[in-house]
Amino acid sequence: MWEQGPSKQKGGKNNIFCSFWISKTFTFFLFNKRISHSHDRWLGSSLFQLWQWEDAEIMVLLQVMYTDLDFIPTFNIEPEVLQQFLFEIYRRYNNIPFHNFKHCFCVTQMMYGLIWLTDLRSKMDSIDLLIMLTSAVCHDLDHTGYNNAYQINARTELALRYNDISPLENHHCAVAFEILERTESNIFRNLSMDQYKRIREGIIKCILATDMSRHNESTLMTILIKVSDISNEARPMEVAEPWLDCLLQEFFNQSDVEKLEGLPVTPFMDRDKVTKPSSQTGFIRFVLLPLFIELANLFPCLEVFKLKGWRKCTVCPSLKQQNRAQSENAAKSKEAAGGRQDSQTDAGPDTSKPESQST
Amino acid sequence: MWEQGPSKQKGGKNNIFCSFWISKTFTFFLFNKRISHSHDRWLGSSLFQLWQWEDAEIMVLLQVMYTDLDFIPTFNIEPEVLQQFLFEIYRRYNNIPFHNFKHCFCVTQMMYGLIWLTDLRSKMDSIDLLIMLTSAVCHDLDHTGYNNAYQINARTELALRYNDISPLENHHCAVAFEILERTESNIFRNLSMDQYKRIREGIIKCILATDMSRHNESTLMTILIKVSDISNEARPMEVAEPWLDCLLQEFFNQSDVEKLEGLPVTPFMDRDKVTKPSSQTGFIRFVLLPLFIELANLFPCLEVFKLKGWRKCTVCPSLKQQNRAQSENAAKSKEAAGGRQDSQTDAGPDTSKPESQST
Repeated sequence: MWEQGPSKQKGGKNNIFCSFWISKTFTFFLFNKRISHSHDRWLGSSLFQLWQWEDAEIMVLLQVMYTDLDFIPTFNIEPEVLQQFLFEIYRRYNNIPFHNFKHCFCVTQMMYGLIWLTDLRSKMDSIDLLIMLTSAVCHDLDHTGYNNAYQINARTELALRYNDISPLENHHCAVAFEILERTESNIFRNLSMDQYKRIREGIIKCILATDMSRHNESTLMTILIKVSDISNEARPMEVAEPWLDCLLQEFFNQSDVEKLEGLPVTPFMDRDKVTKPSSQTGFIRFVLLPLFIELANLFPCLEVFKLKGWRKCTVCPSLKQQNRAQSENAAKSKEAAGGRQDSQTDAGPDTSKPESQST
Repeated sequence: MWEQGPSKQKGGKNNIFCSFWISKTFTFFLFNKRISHSHDRWLGSSLFQLWQWEDAEIMVLLQVMYTDLDFIPTFNIEPEVLQQFLFEIYRRYNNIPFHNFKHCFCVTQMMYGLIWLTDLRSKMDSIDLLIMLTSAVCHDLDHTGYNNAYQINARTELALRYNDISPLENHHCAVAFEILERTESNIFRNLSMDQYKRIREGIIKCILATDMSRHNESTLMTILIKVSDISNEARPMEVAEPWLDCLLQEFFNQSDVEKLEGLPVTPFMDRDKVTKPSSQTGFIRFVLLPLFIELANLFPCLEVFKLKGWRKCTVCPSLKQQNRAQSENAAKSKEAAGGRQDSQTDAGPDTSKPESQST
């Protein structure tokens, strides 16, 4: 674990699953929990219930995703290497309120769902899908719960190392390849040099794109991972709301430390200023909606999916109307062959534009 | 020293100067070598004789530059902190053929010369000049003699750490701020937070710009550091030619290792393919000339300076004609109010465009 920030939480994860995970009980576990074909389809849905799964079960579910997308035979991935890879991934997520192993699963599950929902298997190479799923799995490795602004202001080792350029995302990515460089956890070890090179470039691009403050070139892959990363609001209320509590807890931790260390306090993290609804309206309006509209323009089938989530979202009921208006705008702009501009222009002057919430 | 590549050269630099450098003999040394006012002007000239100076003398000359540009009183830099800073800089350059402490000095001396020659003191803030000189001093810290292509192909720790994004330049920069984060060697320690922030941003921008393969936004500061970095050919033959030998030696070392490790061999580094003249013509034509022309367009006074160096350059006598033609083109394009485009367009189709030689 990268040590910085005041709270160094060590999970002793090594011991929890190691014996269990790689042992024969794995197979029993798989069947016992009935990860059957009907479960798989459920696993690909935005209605998927995330909170019932324990970490060990999540690792099995991640393995099911790699299996279902045919990655195992296509890329000649040995099951024990995939297990070791996923265990290393699990080990390198920290026990923090939001950016933890469950968040990794949540984002990966959304990516997996989007791949099925948009029928990407008929539109993209297998290798691109492998890049996208693996990027989602790795995208917040060793996050310590303090965002880039904190890293830079507090001049942490990470900010020094990365010269203030997306310190967290660069680190997540470097940790991913630290895991992948070890033969026993390198799920790409049976690929050619050229394939590995392409995958490495793709994963780097996708993970760095999750720094929402960077103006990356928008590609389908980078849009999808960003959408997955911030997709909680598109989930059922009973899934989304606990995540918001986790996020705010992590934010409040950071702003408390910022106050303690005399650093600039990030406004949307300040427990004296932020309420649940206020934290969400700006974020949904300026960050989430534009991204989802961009995606819905590319895949009209996602229009419904998008509305479904927000209609149920209780933390910001006023968004229903906004949402409907946005959809109308999106439809209009689609007619006018425009795509991206509309997502920003209908932002009212009364709402202050927040920085990205999730990195 | 960052350990990678096969030859780990350790200089034991700690012991060479430490007692000498920080002791009282420093003052005596300064006067003994007669670093007088007339020397200072000489220090600012492109005709400056680089090869006669020992490392300890170079550290004094660097101190003279900081003094002459009035940085000491303007930024309240304590002499002992400057000395400690320069000693740390000296320690963190490796004993390799080209990218060593003498190269650091060479680049810094060119930057210093350009500041005087273009009368930048009347055109820019002191703080910008401080950024530029310090960037030159730090721009190749802990270079190991293997370029970015090697780092990426050999999957070195540096390439992994920086996700293949300018691994060397990111590292040079991180080492610079590792030194500057230590109070005893932080020459910026008496500046305000805002000033420090501005200097940090500036130095990062300048050092990252020395990755010639990156398409950076061109600013005066980044043009000047790039020009300084590759300015050997603008120096007198007796200064420039030994540098070319050093560079080729470092290149040959790398290509030998690449062959040994079965990695792609960088063509312009291959001892079986490269000759002194061939190595220079493409580089001067496609990298150096465009940059100098861009600079000469900004500062007409540099036109003479540019011609002077290349007329004396014996490794590539055929360039005299090219050089003259380029100057005519540059003059024409200046009349047409164009600035940058011309630098690329007159490249003949017969010469293959080389990658950047110096990083």
